[in-house]
Amino acid sequence: MLAVTILGNNSALPAFDRHPTAQVVTMDEHHFLVDCGEGTQSQMGKYKIRRSKISHIFISHLHGDHYFGLIGLLTSMGLLGRLQEIHLYAPPMLKEIIDMQLSVADTQLPFPLHFHPLTEEGIIVKENKFEVSCFSVSHRIECWGFRFNQIKPFRKINPEKAKEHEVPSSFFERLKWGEDYTTKEGAIIKNEWVTEAGAKSKSYAYSADTIYDERIIEKVKDASLLYHEATYLKDLEERATKRFHCTSTQAATIAKKANVEKLIIGHFSSKYEKLDDFEKEAKEVFENTELALEGVTYRV
Amino acid sequence: MLAVTILGNNSALPAFDRHPTAQVVTMDEHHFLVDCGEGTQSQMGKYKIRRSKISHIFISHLHGDHYFGLIGLLTSMGLLGRLQEIHLYAPPMLKEIIDMQLSVADTQLPFPLHFHPLTEEGIIVKENKFEVSCFSVSHRIECWGFRFNQIKPFRKINPEKAKEHEVPSSFFERLKWGEDYTTKEGAIIKNEWVTEAGAKSKSYAYSADTIYDERIIEKVKDASLLYHEATYLKDLEERATKRFHCTSTQAATIAKKANVEKLIIGHFSSKYEKLDDFEKEAKEVFENTELALEGVTYRV
Repeated sequence: MLAVTILGNNSALPAFDRHPTAQVVTMDEHHFLVDCGEGTQSQMGKYKIRRSKISHIFISHLHGDHYFGLIGLLTSMGLLGRLQEIHLYAPPMLKEIIDMQLSVADTQLPFPLHFHPLTEEGIIVKENKFEVSCFSVSHRIECWGFRFNQIKPFRKINPEKAKEHEVPSSFFERLKWGEDYTTKEGAIIKNEWVTEAGAKSKSYAYSADTIYDERIIEKVKDASLLYHEATYLKDLEERATKRFHCTSTQAATIAKKANVEKLIIGHFSSKYEKLDDFEKEAKEVFENTELALEGVTYRV
Repeated sequence: MLAVTILGNNSALPAFDRHPTAQVVTMDEHHFLVDCGEGTQSQMGKYKIRRSKISHIFISHLHGDHYFGLIGLLTSMGLLGRLQEIHLYAPPMLKEIIDMQLSVADTQLPFPLHFHPLTEEGIIVKENKFEVSCFSVSHRIECWGFRFNQIKPFRKINPEKAKEHEVPSSFFERLKWGEDYTTKEGAIIKNEWVTEAGAKSKSYAYSADTIYDERIIEKVKDASLLYHEATYLKDLEERATKRFHCTSTQAATIAKKANVEKLIIGHFSSKYEKLDDFEKEAKEVFENTELALEGVTYRV
């Protein structure tokens, strides 16, 4: 299972009861927080997301609308007596900011906070059932996108064929991961004789705040779901570019070129009260687009 | 005119849709922000307080529930193109935190932010019509209370008497401030012959987060309005003391001993959903008590 719940979909200036960027990514039993603008802990409360479930936090960049809510969230977790560790992935300077804020408050978090500075592209978390990688995007300051990949067996066992070839059930798990089976007599049972293609692993790509940049395409290629920022409508492309942001049309262009299954767009400028045109413009380029709306969970 | 609008009345952990501490003090045409917990800028929006009107900000101490919303507020003021200066009074380390957060975001505020570190008790702002002083309170970390005093003439002219004694109207302003008038011939017209007692200047005292401490009494003495924290009900006095906080009864005791006109209590622990007992307990000691409720303006 892979799902993304939007807690904030607005750009820097809060407006029209829209909040700055924050999302919760759920992958099977794991819960990740991606960016954490001011008020994220309240939004989590509002949408019944339990703070205690979050194990990993990813911060794309150090503009306030993507992290000002983090210190409050961490402090509240501490006040609630959390003991379970948190892994935090962010630009290096965030550690100094957090350390200073805890220090002046004479506060020690009761749980281990493992800080992982983002310094180069590649895999940053690798667990049995998922991996997370980061990639650099082009914004006014250092900024990172994240890709969350499920890791699950890509072959499905055909029980009749497996029985016919006398593969013991103790080997089934390895069959699912594509291995051939060798009998006691040394005969090789080819994997494809006893399995078929399994369900595709799902993936979610979050490309953070970025100018239109085709280098992103390969990073988010074939994702089940892509979040791409769309701060402005297409008539303000020049302003978008000047501010290292994108239009809805540009977001949809990346989605199309990257062959993703579905696109959600967000980070709307506070100059827009109504968002319908964002969806309309994006759909003209990439049909399977939805607005990233606060409180909505997008499942893939 | 002196009024206080409550934007947040809860202690550290947000709960029951109550927010961390923030208040707007209005003194004639001046607007001051006192403390600025996370979400203060949203609360200002909700209660129609224009960010642009705030000229001075006072931060009592560096526990997050009293300042985590400040950087977001300042950043938003900048995004809105504010040019008018802000005077910020706070413990010295807040400057480093703000500077670091602006620096990592590669952001420069378009308005002058004058930082005034709080280091000793006394008058910190003195203008024609008001003055603000700070006083040290006893909390787990360095913490400051603030007192806002209107400055206005304390004598009212009796026009008939003034005419009778031939005091020229050009001297009236000085009469209001208690001066005697000397005639061309050298005769002294005593102030009290031509004036009477004017309206009393109003004052607001904010004693921040504090343990029960009778040294506060002289600092808030005779205030028109006192805000005193009341984190717990009286049955949890031991816990309050251990955490450098107060009970409702203790808050009311300070109000009574300081002979203030009116008391508002706040900073309620998130363990309490209903607040009725806070008011009840306080009124047993000091009748003119009200709960500091979010969105409510208390005029004196």
